[in-house]
Amino acid sequence: MFELRDRDGLGRLGRFTTPHGTVDTPTLLPVINPNQVLIPPAEMRARFGAQAVITNAYILHRSMRERALAEGVHGLLDFDGPIMTDSGAFQQHVYGGVEVSNEEIVAFQRDIRADVGTVLDRFSEPDHTPARAAKDIAETLFRTRVASEMRGGLLLAGTVQGSIYPDLRHECAEELSKLDVAVHAIGGVVPLMETYRFRDLATVILAAKEGLRPDRPVHLFGAGHPMVFGLAVLLGCDLFDSASYHKYARNGRLMFSDGTRHVEDLREVPCECPACSTATVESLRTNERLRAEHNLYASFAELRRVRQAVADGHLWELVERRCRSHPALLDALRELRHHNEFLERFEPLSRRGAFYFVGPETQHRPILHRFRACLQERYHPPKRFVVMFPEGARPYAAARKAEIARLLQLVDSHFLVKSVWGPVPIELDEMHPIGQSIVPETLDAETLEGLEVFAQQFLRGAGYEGGVLWRGEETFDDVPAEVMDRGAGTFDLAMARLHAVAGMQFGRGAGDALLSGRIEVISSVRTGKVRNVIRDGKHILSLRAEDGFFTLKADGARILHAVFPPPTLRVVVETETAEFNRQGKNVMAKFVTECDPGVRPSDEVLVVDGTDALAAVGRALMNREEMLAFDRGVAVQVREGVA
Amino acid sequence: MFELRDRDGLGRLGRFTTPHGTVDTPTLLPVINPNQVLIPPAEMRARFGAQAVITNAYILHRSMRERALAEGVHGLLDFDGPIMTDSGAFQQHVYGGVEVSNEEIVAFQRDIRADVGTVLDRFSEPDHTPARAAKDIAETLFRTRVASEMRGGLLLAGTVQGSIYPDLRHECAEELSKLDVAVHAIGGVVPLMETYRFRDLATVILAAKEGLRPDRPVHLFGAGHPMVFGLAVLLGCDLFDSASYHKYARNGRLMFSDGTRHVEDLREVPCECPACSTATVESLRTNERLRAEHNLYASFAELRRVRQAVADGHLWELVERRCRSHPALLDALRELRHHNEFLERFEPLSRRGAFYFVGPETQHRPILHRFRACLQERYHPPKRFVVMFPEGARPYAAARKAEIARLLQLVDSHFLVKSVWGPVPIELDEMHPIGQSIVPETLDAETLEGLEVFAQQFLRGAGYEGGVLWRGEETFDDVPAEVMDRGAGTFDLAMARLHAVAGMQFGRGAGDALLSGRIEVISSVRTGKVRNVIRDGKHILSLRAEDGFFTLKADGARILHAVFPPPTLRVVVETETAEFNRQGKNVMAKFVTECDPGVRPSDEVLVVDGTDALAAVGRALMNREEMLAFDRGVAVQVREGVA
Repeated sequence: MFELRDRDGLGRLGRFTTPHGTVDTPTLLPVINPNQVLIPPAEMRARFGAQAVITNAYILHRSMRERALAEGVHGLLDFDGPIMTDSGAFQQHVYGGVEVSNEEIVAFQRDIRADVGTVLDRFSEPDHTPARAAKDIAETLFRTRVASEMRGGLLLAGTVQGSIYPDLRHECAEELSKLDVAVHAIGGVVPLMETYRFRDLATVILAAKEGLRPDRPVHLFGAGHPMVFGLAVLLGCDLFDSASYHKYARNGRLMFSDGTRHVEDLREVPCECPACSTATVESLRTNERLRAEHNLYASFAELRRVRQAVADGHLWELVERRCRSHPALLDALRELRHHNEFLERFEPLSRRGAFYFVGPETQHRPILHRFRACLQERYHPPKRFVVMFPEGARPYAAARKAEIARLLQLVDSHFLVKSVWGPVPIELDEMHPIGQSIVPETLDAETLEGLEVFAQQFLRGAGYEGGVLWRGEETFDDVPAEVMDRGAGTFDLAMARLHAVAGMQFGRGAGDALLSGRIEVISSVRTGKVRNVIRDGKHILSLRAEDGFFTLKADGARILHAVFPPPTLRVVVETETAEFNRQGKNVMAKFVTECDPGVRPSDEVLVVDGTDALAAVGRALMNREEMLAFDRGVAVQVREGVA
Repeated sequence: MFELRDRDGLGRLGRFTTPHGTVDTPTLLPVINPNQVLIPPAEMRARFGAQAVITNAYILHRSMRERALAEGVHGLLDFDGPIMTDSGAFQQHVYGGVEVSNEEIVAFQRDIRADVGTVLDRFSEPDHTPARAAKDIAETLFRTRVASEMRGGLLLAGTVQGSIYPDLRHECAEELSKLDVAVHAIGGVVPLMETYRFRDLATVILAAKEGLRPDRPVHLFGAGHPMVFGLAVLLGCDLFDSASYHKYARNGRLMFSDGTRHVEDLREVPCECPACSTATVESLRTNERLRAEHNLYASFAELRRVRQAVADGHLWELVERRCRSHPALLDALRELRHHNEFLERFEPLSRRGAFYFVGPETQHRPILHRFRACLQERYHPPKRFVVMFPEGARPYAAARKAEIARLLQLVDSHFLVKSVWGPVPIELDEMHPIGQSIVPETLDAETLEGLEVFAQQFLRGAGYEGGVLWRGEETFDDVPAEVMDRGAGTFDLAMARLHAVAGMQFGRGAGDALLSGRIEVISSVRTGKVRNVIRDGKHILSLRAEDGFFTLKADGARILHAVFPPPTLRVVVETETAEFNRQGKNVMAKFVTECDPGVRPSDEVLVVDGTDALAAVGRALMNREEMLAFDRGVAVQVREGVA
């Protein structure tokens, strides 16, 4: 039903299949008001790129029941693509007096042959008490159970409620995950968005996501402003629906990815969309339909940018930019660091292209949280460190590399650079994201403070209180004479790099395991960087230029398999399907029975059968909970089968 | 020739008149290569909104000299709008061997009847020595002098050079300002933009701007990436020219206001411009012209957004967002705080709408620098302060206002709120930008540090070392008993507000001057806020709801005129034109002979004649140096003539 195609943060490029076709997510379902069709669904698809639409079953039930049953919702809306229907729960909540029961409205949605229908959930307001919210959850879950028993061919959207209480949201999400629903909706968030409580919105989404099983699309009910799409996708929302394009248009407002603008304030047409490019300020002021068209173009273009950012692995950058559009969005961004333990589990190992520092929030990205955690857990610290302050803000200038290498020889010790990202042993300076980072020359105080705190944490953790030789700044002239006088050392930076990366990537001890025996190193003629590692004549590892991590070859996999006991690095598949993996075929998620909880998307993994016999080596596309949950899609891209 | 229509930061909405028509600035002149016209100028105008184009006189001179002289450049390009020509200085610098002299190429530009022609200046590279750059400046200025004597009907662009040396840029700009040129160009910046040295770019532009007379448009040579338009306009650039739209397209690159994207990296069409909205990833990959069209749409749309931001007074916000697109742009943004003395002189008094905090850089905006400076210089501090920490990050919650007012009565003292923006006496909490500010709930360490530093500076400056009664946090339960026990005081917040705002706006002592005698206050029935101040039966002041500043009435102006000696608050006009101002007509810049250097755009001013007789009261649209420099446009919008 839902398939994962690509990812970044908790954001996913997915494919959601319904009876009337497949939807590429994340996407927006524009609300079609059957009583007042401003832009018909077919035009929504052709001109704006809508893949599916949503309409209100309650309105259909009230005002055109017989016709809807006879023609079906697809006939009624003259649209052959996926149609989702809403139950009227929101209307019931806001206006009261929706005289229809959960059973009635679910049956109706089924009978008008909607692709996805919605349970009549109970809406909790942000100011409801926990007790009241808990009661509404119980009722919502009860109704969802009832609905799931009578759904027939209808795919159900079950809604996570729980007001602003993370525990309740989490609990509701966990219960919902056990039920037969196809879509997980997050409800009760419109009041948060309307009052710009984006920090609460982020907290609520994350609490729900932590409780939800990962193999179903997550629908953020009522979200339709392009300003929030980036953030919501980063937090794992896949579907949006909204009548905002029309509501905003009616009030003279244009939506942009950086906020809202009233047409009365315009002196210029500040947009290049097809609606605006032929419009004048005057026509935007007088023409509601033109404004609605703009709002749709702006929304779908932003979703394309967001999807592109997921594909590029640059979604965090996009969100860091978008969150400068309003102080309340900045609050949401600053909240995320408190959820790093969760966020990190889904964060891919590396991504393409440069890693930008664009504010004090960048330092707290999950991938850097992971880097610092791995440094504590997996890096094998040397006896002595020379601690170096960053030059400008970069770990060090490329031009200084030769000088540093010479110094390393002299002092027979390691360098630890106090970088913006945390402490970076010099052997790890080419690893993602350190090696790909671009940092301003001037830094804010929070970042400088963080840099110091992270370095001290690491040094203390590694027992370095007294072992730091030098804390010089900028130049090497400050290196104490006793350090310089040690004479030529035996420090081999290239070999130290291989050891350190192996440890960080595969676990402490991996370096020693892989790099014993007769080691040959093949380097790039052009860059001088290590490319392949040969042990006793066998190619065990390749070092990737783009992210500084190893690609594991079959012979390298055999070594790690022998050294590390299960579950480390393992993806366990059903024994009868392991044969296919031995032949080089990918591991499908549905055949995975267990997985190392330490595996992250893009990690190198060992594919084993039920007896822990090595079947293949490859690249994980999911983490453990995803592999176990998904019935569709590739869990491991197999590189080599192991016969 | 150049007229100022609106402003924000150093950014200006201007109108530049040439023989072939008027150009609304800021704008981009796309480069037309006469040998290879990808998009003809007429189409540039009709489809993309180009108001003027630029072409290379050197190429015309070399390859189609006779035709150009016969048809004129307008005939040759088949364009009847403004055409600027470049001299080939850049080509001479990059490729060498431009065998044409300054005299030849200036005469040629004149003779092909270009609207604006360029001196053959000497290009300095960022790595040139100061001595070499100084020599190039001397030669450039010499050539500009020669050109100005032979220009005929040609408007000249004279170029500021000086490599990356602020002193040299400044000096060159000052000299150039004395010469007969119509446009001030800033040259030698392409190498800075190509290497993302945006901090140097900002420094160079500011150094030039400080030296340039303000009544001519400033052209940033070779700037054509939408990523830099916001920043460059904020720093006072009015014209841009670039072949980038075509060069980038040729290399498969699409330009966006947040960076560049290569078509090979696209999976989606991440844009809604007319070129992209019918394009596919495939057509963008194969069609260079389509890419060039996108680049033009993106550039002109960004310029419209920038112009709109100037009109809104939200240009700083736009630039703070844009500068998150690359770490090097963030460096440029962080550089600006060091130029606040200069930037503040041009910053309007207030602007419409909310003032957003979006990062540690916001705290250093020129308008806040001014607020803090005025507080030191113009605010009359009370004997005692109760210092209050911000609640959350806001100065204080609106809900607490009543409680605070009650406490003020009890302690008979003033509150000083340590806000994000600096220390804010409670009487000034409705003044722009304090009263219009929206601040996140969580703040970065740099901002919190700044808050503390600014508060301490103020308290020390005002001699409060020992005079602070209470440094409580959050609740008033911490107020010491001896404070609470003082009993009912006489503190009148409404009157304190009027005094404090008058002082901040007009100068220390203005409150006592204006608010003596029998004072009646007329308040809004709806909001309870003061609207009008009547003294001895005469309406002297109105307090504006939108920014918390006073509007000065004629009777108020008479008081200030009597109390403050010249030049304070004065705009001096030629005595024979003062009569028109007495009748309520606006003050045109060309009739201004002097002005208080303290006057800022949007300030209330006293219009006086040569004998210091009061002629009118109104709102300044310019600061002193602009009033004295401009020959066109309104310097003071007169509200009331004083008979």
